[in-house]
Amino acid sequence: MRGVATVTPNPALDLTTRLSALVPGAVNRVREAQEDPGGKGINVAGFLASQGARVPVLATGWLGEANAAAFRAFLAAGGIADRFLPVAGSTRTNVKIVEDDERVTDLNFPGFAVDAAAEDALAAAVRATAAECGWVALCGSLPRGASPGLHARLLGEARAAGAKVLLDASGPPFAAALGAGPDAIKPNGEELGELLGERVAGVADAAAAVGQVQARGVGTVIVSLGAEGAVFAEGDARVHAVGRPRALVSTVGAGDAMVAGWLMGTLRGLDLAGRARLATAFSLGALSTLGPRLPDAAEIAALAEAVEVEALPDAA
Amino acid sequence: MRGVATVTPNPALDLTTRLSALVPGAVNRVREAQEDPGGKGINVAGFLASQGARVPVLATGWLGEANAAAFRAFLAAGGIADRFLPVAGSTRTNVKIVEDDERVTDLNFPGFAVDAAAEDALAAAVRATAAECGWVALCGSLPRGASPGLHARLLGEARAAGAKVLLDASGPPFAAALGAGPDAIKPNGEELGELLGERVAGVADAAAAVGQVQARGVGTVIVSLGAEGAVFAEGDARVHAVGRPRALVSTVGAGDAMVAGWLMGTLRGLDLAGRARLATAFSLGALSTLGPRLPDAAEIAALAEAVEVEALPDAA
Repeated sequence: MRGVATVTPNPALDLTTRLSALVPGAVNRVREAQEDPGGKGINVAGFLASQGARVPVLATGWLGEANAAAFRAFLAAGGIADRFLPVAGSTRTNVKIVEDDERVTDLNFPGFAVDAAAEDALAAAVRATAAECGWVALCGSLPRGASPGLHARLLGEARAAGAKVLLDASGPPFAAALGAGPDAIKPNGEELGELLGERVAGVADAAAAVGQVQARGVGTVIVSLGAEGAVFAEGDARVHAVGRPRALVSTVGAGDAMVAGWLMGTLRGLDLAGRARLATAFSLGALSTLGPRLPDAAEIAALAEAVEVEALPDAA
Repeated sequence: MRGVATVTPNPALDLTTRLSALVPGAVNRVREAQEDPGGKGINVAGFLASQGARVPVLATGWLGEANAAAFRAFLAAGGIADRFLPVAGSTRTNVKIVEDDERVTDLNFPGFAVDAAAEDALAAAVRATAAECGWVALCGSLPRGASPGLHARLLGEARAAGAKVLLDASGPPFAAALGAGPDAIKPNGEELGELLGERVAGVADAAAAVGQVQARGVGTVIVSLGAEGAVFAEGDARVHAVGRPRALVSTVGAGDAMVAGWLMGTLRGLDLAGRARLATAFSLGALSTLGPRLPDAAEIAALAEAVEVEALPDAA
């Protein structure tokens, strides 16, 4: 059975620290620190692997050599085939300083930079990885030095190797890669609105907007809308799915979980409503955990059962 | 020719970051970040290697697996034989946040913890490493979980392997290891005062105090006194050495440079005054560079020439 791969050109090491109070100008002792290897594609791969994808899960992209160990250990622990390429320097670290009064201060570091040779190497790695896969998810931002058209190039490589491509990015790299016609995209309402130059604030807006993107050659459009769920469009069909999380602990990784759930539904051969249900359940599951994690498969199944899926009027 | 080894049980990754202003409660983007593998013994080994030690330089201790790469790369680049033992977790990171107005905020992370099995492994590593060496420098603090008597135990291992031992530590681990009779120690005035329960504030105080430590079985006592230079005592002889740095950029590693300079002088077979001169020049060199670095050997030689060395009255 063909696998599923994710590509993360710009991973991030999320370092969550706790201390009593942050005092600028002083020596602050951190009481607790938790490191989570992250980045959209790494999250998607982790979610798929944690829910028993029953096909090989592969992951590629770039990792800064100086702090690659945490990422490689995470991939190994999840049974994810590690196809990441090392580059000089460190993967960016995002430090989140949480004080006892729950005030949060973020300290976001610059990460490694890449050059044309690194892009050539990643293009080759994506092609080789995609050759083992039915689907490839191209995820997230680009590091310093990367060409804005890199996602579009990688999309071409994956497709040339016979894989379908889901694109989850934003800003100019997203717009540039749309021209290459991804099989599926998953913007949130804001990202879709930015792309189209109009406001996409709820289910009706999203349902009205998806057709404009499909007209550019995108087969499936998933628009995540926060508490309002998500709109899924494929060909002329449109469905809306929404549910309630067991608890709202952290939104970290909720969008990535939706991508993972949709891919999982695709691997299981579910119809559009079934994929919408599973994608929504994954996303709800991520909301009830700290950091980019999912509850177990039984809990995901229970969440999926409670998701409300309604057909919206066809585009035709 | 026999080598020189340093032991660093509790290294640190110094992460110096620059941003315009640190705003608690907000997302702060770091403009520049520089990572320096540090910890006293690692600094000493780096200084020795950078100045052409002409004998093998070896380094051991513990490194947290998650961020060991930066340390291992530093050792490899310096041609230092890497005998560090991996332990689970991360070596502690000390984040220094420097704002445009030069206000500095420190964020010090907890590091890895060790257990009795890790101590046994380090004791064996120190014995094996010391067997290749004439001198071993035991440096710095102990990680969480370590026995307060660890430096004393490691001192015994190094000596059993035929090496002489320099101890550069502070607090209870320092006091505990003194009982094992190191061949040399390098406290600063404050650390020596804490040990003896009296004030050691200048050259006269230091010259008066060294005899009390020698009476406990320590051959050579080096007391660093900041801008007042340092007092060197060996047997009954005492000298005072002092000089001026070319520039005062950072005091990071100045004490470690003094240890390295003294060891270098020992490797070169210099007399007490010569070793005092070179140790002082190394320390002055470290003051004129950012982070734990030394200027080149020619600059060190020029600094050494300008160091003033005076004999103090003998103890006898």
